[in-house]
Amino acid sequence: MPLERAEALKLLAGVPFGRIVFTSRALPAVRPVNHLLLDDTVVIRTHDGAALSGAVGAEEGVVVAYEADAIDPVTRLGWSVVVTGYARPVTDPDQLARYREVLHPWVAASMDHTVAIRPDLVAGFRLTAEADG
Amino acid sequence: MPLERAEALKLLAGVPFGRIVFTSRALPAVRPVNHLLLDDTVVIRTHDGAALSGAVGAEEGVVVAYEADAIDPVTRLGWSVVVTGYARPVTDPDQLARYREVLHPWVAASMDHTVAIRPDLVAGFRLTAEADG
Repeated sequence: MPLERAEALKLLAGVPFGRIVFTSRALPAVRPVNHLLLDDTVVIRTHDGAALSGAVGAEEGVVVAYEADAIDPVTRLGWSVVVTGYARPVTDPDQLARYREVLHPWVAASMDHTVAIRPDLVAGFRLTAEADG
Repeated sequence: MPLERAEALKLLAGVPFGRIVFTSRALPAVRPVNHLLLDDTVVIRTHDGAALSGAVGAEEGVVVAYEADAIDPVTRLGWSVVVTGYARPVTDPDQLARYREVLHPWVAASMDHTVAIRPDLVAGFRLTAEADG
């Protein structure tokens, strides 16, 4: 069952982490990361050495996908949301300070890059009981 | 804390679903899907209309990433495993029959494509208590 954009973003905002999907050296790459939905963007922090930092280091940004889900392995019910859009490093000092104050990475290491993903496309679905094949 | 290949594959095999990551029309794409680890490959089923079917329809296969994780949002402990490798449609009739017998898609619809992902690269890590930043 497809989800409306507003509902999909609300579900995404309600969970603490998801998975960022990008291209690294021409290969598909994916990393779990915690997020917040702030200023209508998905905000994450990533560490210096992460492949993602290179990918989104460019000022013009790169297109990434960001996925979050909550699926119960027993009932097989739940939802998945995928946001696709430009990821850009946050460079404005005030914005950066605010994001860093509220978003604390779960993985230690110097999380020097704060990245904002603009949800240009939002797709989501619910797994419902009758969809259980 | 990085994981050894064997341990990472064991963790992946121990959960019922993950997320397939691929490129669709030059954009990064990701879909949750249930899986089994059979014959040293990650086996999934996908439905006819899925973007993935097009991507892995080619006989030579395409490189995809497959991610599974189990992260507790409260304790922030858990693990994540990413397999990267060639995804190929399973076409051998005996193999196909066997895979279809044991792997039942969670999403209804005609799940006509059975896909095997060879784990050429296996990367994983554990989130440990001291890594909690």
